[in-house]
Amino acid sequence: MMTAPALTLGQLAERLGATLRGAENKRITGLATLHEAGPEQLSFLANPQYRRFLATTQAGAVLLTAKDAEGYAGDALLVADPYLAYARISHLFDPKPQAVAGQVHPTAVIAADALLDPTASVGPHAVIESGARIGAGVTIGAQCFIGARTVIGDGGWLAPRVTLYHDVTIGQRVSIQSGAVIGGEGFGFANERGVWQKIAQIGGVTIGDDVEIGSNTTIDRGALADTVIGNGVKLDNQIMIAHNVQVGDHTAMAGCVGISGSAKIGKHCMLAGGVGLVGHIEICDGVFVTGMTMVTRSITEPGAYSSGTAMQTAGEWKKSAARFRQLDDMARRLQTLEKRLAAVTSAGDASSDA
Amino acid sequence: MMTAPALTLGQLAERLGATLRGAENKRITGLATLHEAGPEQLSFLANPQYRRFLATTQAGAVLLTAKDAEGYAGDALLVADPYLAYARISHLFDPKPQAVAGQVHPTAVIAADALLDPTASVGPHAVIESGARIGAGVTIGAQCFIGARTVIGDGGWLAPRVTLYHDVTIGQRVSIQSGAVIGGEGFGFANERGVWQKIAQIGGVTIGDDVEIGSNTTIDRGALADTVIGNGVKLDNQIMIAHNVQVGDHTAMAGCVGISGSAKIGKHCMLAGGVGLVGHIEICDGVFVTGMTMVTRSITEPGAYSSGTAMQTAGEWKKSAARFRQLDDMARRLQTLEKRLAAVTSAGDASSDA
Amino acid sequence: MMTAPALTLGQLAERLGATLRGAENKRITGLATLHEAGPEQLSFLANPQYRRFLATTQAGAVLLTAKDAEGYAGDALLVADPYLAYARISHLFDPKPQAVAGQVHPTAVIAADALLDPTASVGPHAVIESGARIGAGVTIGAQCFIGARTVIGDGGWLAPRVTLYHDVTIGQRVSIQSGAVIGGEGFGFANERGVWQKIAQIGGVTIGDDVEIGSNTTIDRGALADTVIGNGVKLDNQIMIAHNVQVGDHTAMAGCVGISGSAKIGKHCMLAGGVGLVGHIEICDGVFVTGMTMVTRSITEPGAYSSGTAMQTAGEWKKSAARFRQLDDMARRLQTLEKRLAAVTSAGDASSDA
Repeated sequence: MMTAPALTLGQLAERLGATLRGAENKRITGLATLHEAGPEQLSFLANPQYRRFLATTQAGAVLLTAKDAEGYAGDALLVADPYLAYARISHLFDPKPQAVAGQVHPTAVIAADALLDPTASVGPHAVIESGARIGAGVTIGAQCFIGARTVIGDGGWLAPRVTLYHDVTIGQRVSIQSGAVIGGEGFGFANERGVWQKIAQIGGVTIGDDVEIGSNTTIDRGALADTVIGNGVKLDNQIMIAHNVQVGDHTAMAGCVGISGSAKIGKHCMLAGGVGLVGHIEICDGVFVTGMTMVTRSITEPGAYSSGTAMQTAGEWKKSAARFRQLDDMARRLQTLEKRLAAVTSAGDASSDA
Repeated sequence: MMTAPALTLGQLAERLGATLRGAENKRITGLATLHEAGPEQLSFLANPQYRRFLATTQAGAVLLTAKDAEGYAGDALLVADPYLAYARISHLFDPKPQAVAGQVHPTAVIAADALLDPTASVGPHAVIESGARIGAGVTIGAQCFIGARTVIGDGGWLAPRVTLYHDVTIGQRVSIQSGAVIGGEGFGFANERGVWQKIAQIGGVTIGDDVEIGSNTTIDRGALADTVIGNGVKLDNQIMIAHNVQVGDHTAMAGCVGISGSAKIGKHCMLAGGVGLVGHIEICDGVFVTGMTMVTRSITEPGAYSSGTAMQTAGEWKKSAARFRQLDDMARRLQTLEKRLAAVTSAGDASSDA
Repeated sequence: MMTAPALTLGQLAERLGATLRGAENKRITGLATLHEAGPEQLSFLANPQYRRFLATTQAGAVLLTAKDAEGYAGDALLVADPYLAYARISHLFDPKPQAVAGQVHPTAVIAADALLDPTASVGPHAVIESGARIGAGVTIGAQCFIGARTVIGDGGWLAPRVTLYHDVTIGQRVSIQSGAVIGGEGFGFANERGVWQKIAQIGGVTIGDDVEIGSNTTIDRGALADTVIGNGVKLDNQIMIAHNVQVGDHTAMAGCVGISGSAKIGKHCMLAGGVGLVGHIEICDGVFVTGMTMVTRSITEPGAYSSGTAMQTAGEWKKSAARFRQLDDMARRLQTLEKRLAAVTSAGDASSDA
């Protein structure tokens, strides 16, 4: 690891607007969980189930709520939301190499009419095509490809080997991890007597501000109008967003989610890992979909949604799965039984009456 | 966006063999949906549910069947299949940058004995290895890698950053999007007392004519013989095709499909998003598999196939999922009830007889 | 294909410690399955269901157990485990181009303070950043990116276009296919009144010896501590391993598996294609999970586990799926029936007593 940065507890308290309880000059060189932290590391208590580690932690200091701090004797930074405070402070200890503003590697191939802000940096073997515009403070990683007329807003960060096709518009402070492909040609074909005829994908992609895009995630360009990703959207790795999808602000998707063409997803939604959406449906704001659910119809009410079955041992599962195929038959037999039992009972009543 | 191309309605009618109804010299600069099109844009009516937009569309002209045109007063191009006509015409308005035939970027690294047709073009930082053969009119995008002895047929188009390993054979007019990997080493291991011993993947990949391969899709090379993709096959993004899979002509797969080793898929099949196939099975021609279905056995009859469960609210789903685990027990209890009720009824009959 | 290597049966027998039955000087130029092999190819019988091909195979020789060889008249190499012998011998016939030890392509961009063993090779347009250390005999493919301070152990092989972020540590003899991304930033955010605040991912990735990583697989770096992949682990294509996952030695995962953050998987496990794991759970050693299963809880007993439903025709499936949503109601009605029938029976008993 690189030489860690060092900050004092006092400096950290000031950064966070936290109440310092302990040695102002204590040196902090990193972050760690409660049970792994050493005397130069800051830790935090966010999940109540880890409270038991407070008694034995070796951490130099802990981010705590005032309430949780009551039972803790060590140095602490008191904050309203320790997890959020950890999120804020984490960037101070990130060993990620920082590009030098304005540095353009001589092996980068940049079109004469591309517009680079003087504070943007470009890594080795990157390619920037005609008419692209790169904003202030943008980092273009090694081996990235930026297509013609594509725009990257101020403060963008592209890991090595990101591909942006032509006519993609990216907002401010957007981070994109390696292997992501934005603006690839969507899956559009017309069937002519069994043979698929390709439809040119002439739309673009519009991505808002403060978006995060994970490794090997793909977002296709629109067929006619643009594919649209809202502000503050967070996309994990290996997500597939098809042409003309619209994703509302501050929606988050975990790894391996697949969204079919022209689906429209609301704001503040959460799609867990492996969720799939069929095309041309609409999900309202505030929907949570659990892992690997297949969403086959529009959702109009906020709330949590699921499909699938729960895991069993393979032996037990085989029995359940076999019965699943008989379910309609079982339901009909159940109905028949109910009718017959009703008949028996009334016949029984009749006979006792007799 | 780039300056749009402009064509007259008359020129478009001629291209399509369409009947022109309206101003021959009307200038058309783009394509759009009925409700988004402006006076210089051509639109189309393919899906009957959008017919209502005909009354209010601002489109300069609309691709219509003669029948649909009856109720429409504006300019129109009359065709048998408007969606197919739109597919054909779409390429005229594609802003995708076109490579200059024969242009090889000086940063490309090309083996001395690779054979490039003089009309092929190669982008910056591409690498072409020994013995590769690149056909007429092929576009090799920036940062592509073409392995030793790999062959790309005439008219191929590779987006930036496509990887073809060695000994891959690609037919004519094949398009491959960014991040696709063709010819990677398949997943073959022999287990020796709990330790996996790798099996060299010495086969190649053979891809037919007119195939489309989406972003970040992977097609592994064969273990012994080749992995084979037929003519006219269309593969969306993030698809995984394992070693020695065979895909029949004109089959289409949507995003995130996974095909296990040595599976054989027929012609004119459609696999919706997220479908998975186990290995060593065979799917006949003309099969449609719905989204996220797990195909665990061969399919010998054309038709539609599904697995999974339908989405519910998470609360309702939890109840269903809990009962799914009791299904075998429920089925047995149902059987018992049927027997007991039969006994009661016959006993009742007996007692009334008495 | 390249000119095939040629070895004699005698040489192969010696390599394998096999008993040779037949012509010691017979020339073998390749490997093939029993029904595809020609007179210069070696084949093998591993799966009993292919025994029928022994009678008609044209193979020059066959890897066989002594027992299976009894019924076979042709040339044979007798071994205890023919599949394992095939695995061993396969590497002799691999047409994969071999890098020349110590060759560094002049277009590679290598930081002055990166440490390359003199026997390591680096392909065109690769980038190696400050403080990286590359071991003996390592092959870095074209267009690879090796981040700052990342370490690759002796004998590693990276296909073209592999991305390793900074502070990734890779053991000995590790193979990584194209498009893989190791060390990308994991999906960590704190929610502040509906807006996601990014958490810097300051951990690294530690990968053991003899690991295989497939095309377009992504392994995220840890949030605080490292993500850890054990020795001998085999990962197929398009797998997603989230931050702080731990994978035990000799575990294998097929394509498209997704593992959520901080999940811990034991040794000698096998996850079939498309399996998903939720985060923060623990899977013990020796677990097998069948294809596309959603693992939602820890597994403490070795064995096989499944979820989902079996494939049906879409028509039949729709009925089953509709009933699945009624399952809880069905279960309650079944219970009611049981009670009512018990009442009827005892009433009947009572009445016969009367």
